[in-house]
Amino acid sequence: MPHPNDPSLRSFVPVDPASDFPIQNLPYGVFSAKDGLTPRVGVAIGDHVLDLWKLEQDGRLDVGDLGVFAGPTLNPFMALGPKLWSRTRARISELLRHDNPELRDNAELRRLALVPMTQAKLHLPIAVAGYTDFYSSKEHATNVGVMFRGKDNALQPNWLHMPIGYNGRASTVVVSGTKVRRPRGQLKPPSAELPSFGPCKRLDFELEMGAVVGQRSPMGEMLTEAQAEQMIFGFVLLNDWSARDIQQWEYVPLGPFQAKAFATSISPWIVTREALEPFRVHGPEQDPVPLPYLRQMQPNNYDLQLDVGLRAAQMKQSTRICRTNFKYMYWSSVQQLVHHASSGCAMNIGDLLGSGTISGPEKDQRGSLLEISWNGTEPIELPGDIKRTFLEDDDSLSFHGWCQGDGYRVGFGEVEGTIVPAE
Amino acid sequence: MPHPNDPSLRSFVPVDPASDFPIQNLPYGVFSAKDGLTPRVGVAIGDHVLDLWKLEQDGRLDVGDLGVFAGPTLNPFMALGPKLWSRTRARISELLRHDNPELRDNAELRRLALVPMTQAKLHLPIAVAGYTDFYSSKEHATNVGVMFRGKDNALQPNWLHMPIGYNGRASTVVVSGTKVRRPRGQLKPPSAELPSFGPCKRLDFELEMGAVVGQRSPMGEMLTEAQAEQMIFGFVLLNDWSARDIQQWEYVPLGPFQAKAFATSISPWIVTREALEPFRVHGPEQDPVPLPYLRQMQPNNYDLQLDVGLRAAQMKQSTRICRTNFKYMYWSSVQQLVHHASSGCAMNIGDLLGSGTISGPEKDQRGSLLEISWNGTEPIELPGDIKRTFLEDDDSLSFHGWCQGDGYRVGFGEVEGTIVPAE
Repeated sequence: MPHPNDPSLRSFVPVDPASDFPIQNLPYGVFSAKDGLTPRVGVAIGDHVLDLWKLEQDGRLDVGDLGVFAGPTLNPFMALGPKLWSRTRARISELLRHDNPELRDNAELRRLALVPMTQAKLHLPIAVAGYTDFYSSKEHATNVGVMFRGKDNALQPNWLHMPIGYNGRASTVVVSGTKVRRPRGQLKPPSAELPSFGPCKRLDFELEMGAVVGQRSPMGEMLTEAQAEQMIFGFVLLNDWSARDIQQWEYVPLGPFQAKAFATSISPWIVTREALEPFRVHGPEQDPVPLPYLRQMQPNNYDLQLDVGLRAAQMKQSTRICRTNFKYMYWSSVQQLVHHASSGCAMNIGDLLGSGTISGPEKDQRGSLLEISWNGTEPIELPGDIKRTFLEDDDSLSFHGWCQGDGYRVGFGEVEGTIVPAE
Repeated sequence: MPHPNDPSLRSFVPVDPASDFPIQNLPYGVFSAKDGLTPRVGVAIGDHVLDLWKLEQDGRLDVGDLGVFAGPTLNPFMALGPKLWSRTRARISELLRHDNPELRDNAELRRLALVPMTQAKLHLPIAVAGYTDFYSSKEHATNVGVMFRGKDNALQPNWLHMPIGYNGRASTVVVSGTKVRRPRGQLKPPSAELPSFGPCKRLDFELEMGAVVGQRSPMGEMLTEAQAEQMIFGFVLLNDWSARDIQQWEYVPLGPFQAKAFATSISPWIVTREALEPFRVHGPEQDPVPLPYLRQMQPNNYDLQLDVGLRAAQMKQSTRICRTNFKYMYWSSVQQLVHHASSGCAMNIGDLLGSGTISGPEKDQRGSLLEISWNGTEPIELPGDIKRTFLEDDDSLSFHGWCQGDGYRVGFGEVEGTIVPAE
């Protein structure tokens, strides 16, 4: 049987060459449809969602634990572990192949199990156990450092030695399409003598990828590179919405808190680590060489193109304001996970690790408005004489991400969010 | 019917006057017993655990949702809301009163529902949704500030304007009695040129109380003082174990991460907010007056005595190294919760809010070894010529906490943890 990543595979389900979801991808999500059934697990194929619960009920997909796809999160499936993840993906690939009549020629099952995406509502695909946000792009950390501390002290002394991160707020991780209310908070611009409380004036996005942890690790134990890698189920696009003015006043000495707690948006589709395998690349050289527990024996980065579109309410379509690549990240998701568990911190099924803002070496590769507008000093110009330093009410942000194969792309769909006023 | 807090109430279950668990307390926990049943909800009364699931099955305790006490966490009960919390406590009080024959004279039910504490194993009482740790003792923040930044800049500029806090790691919140493995991490003492990886050398405790959030608040909405108060189900003792050397190297600019992620211990019994009602007091005067959203119309602190005992492996019994009071906290748990939700952060059933280290104005009221040993410069002397600056392997720490009534105390039992070596 050909490997599910085989570029020559084709599905009997029509897939546009520009689609994010060819048979080589098969990302997992949670959806509901007009059939009135509750949210359940599906896989994206072209313009359709394949209903895994229907396939399971029909005896076409046996993972040894009936009902694993019937619930509103992927956590029960993730709990089954990497061997089952791989076997299930191979079986789904087989069922969708153009030369397999099993589903292709079963009109009744096809009608039940293949839901047009236009009829599907997509939900948050996981129960987020913990959300951790890292800060692993050297370009991003350097840009921010230069802005606030000057060129000579841009990177903090610890930055090159470990993936710096903090615990975020899991309760406000939401799926693409969820409106984002402009947060309120304490603001104290440098010119003010005292803080005031009101709507954030420097609302920003952060372009990130999220690694979804699909296995547990016990409290008190460390992880090797190989163990950490095996625990990663897949990846999502992630927008780590940020209130820069709230952050600036609150973050010393315990880090960002309310500035990041109001919303974090992720894409509805989780692209599996296995589907990204053909796009593995080495990250930037790490100098100094990391301490032994963080050393990598294999390439753990991905050649994954990313872009960000911004659409103000008056605009008909969005304008690209950033184009970058996940491969630039200095610290990989595997290193982040190894470091996360290094103190003995237990990791859980459904933990979400934000990569940190993904900026590249070029000016048009900056993954936040803080960097793009250089802390508000260089407004960007959008069609129709619209200028932006930070986000205005009714602005809509969308991220796209994909790995380009030969004649197909393994994509993430999008993560979109629109700002609604504070009141 | 007398109020469950009535000091004149007595139970037919014998309760020592020095017990933490008289009929005026009735704290909730999760326990299992030698009967082989799975963990379920109970209430402490004297030296016994009252099995609420047994009472529910016997039709003695109807909360309108059968099985709410049958599971391994209090979350389903907390979800029922403050009116049900209050009504249930009143009913349990009634069942335990010395002048009510209902349970007292039913030998079979008594045998089933009253489990001697010596036969009960106590479990983590809640599924921790999110763990947030604050920093709300002015004395503690000042001590730490003087130590690291000198007297003139002891408090950061934001500290007097809001309860400073950060998101902690929910996955390693454990119940009293759980061994705590000495964490490993990156260490870079000021004398070292480069960091190294190894066991923490400056392992510390932090004496805190934890507020248990028992109700949800929606994303995008703020809370009033009254709403926040009603959401708090109760309180636990909390030890926020801290690796000072890991923290010192990692915490700039995103706050504590692995230094606090290896373990947080809580007491098995949750004392309800209602049981603490008679012990409400005003906190210290807040100057400057907080911004309107943080202003308090009523006293939200508690006169709750706390002590910390340390026992090295060679010692027969523990020695008290701190005695302080929860009433000293500058920011109350209600203010913490109001601030937490102020950006629109959704709060969940099972959220745990650590108060921050509770230090008092006197030297013997310091709630961490960092302060007690003044950053390791003033070792404390324990019986048997034992000295300590930070914790050694096999050291055991125990916290106790209680409110003293007239002839009875409303107590928390203890939270204990013993350090085991890193490897």
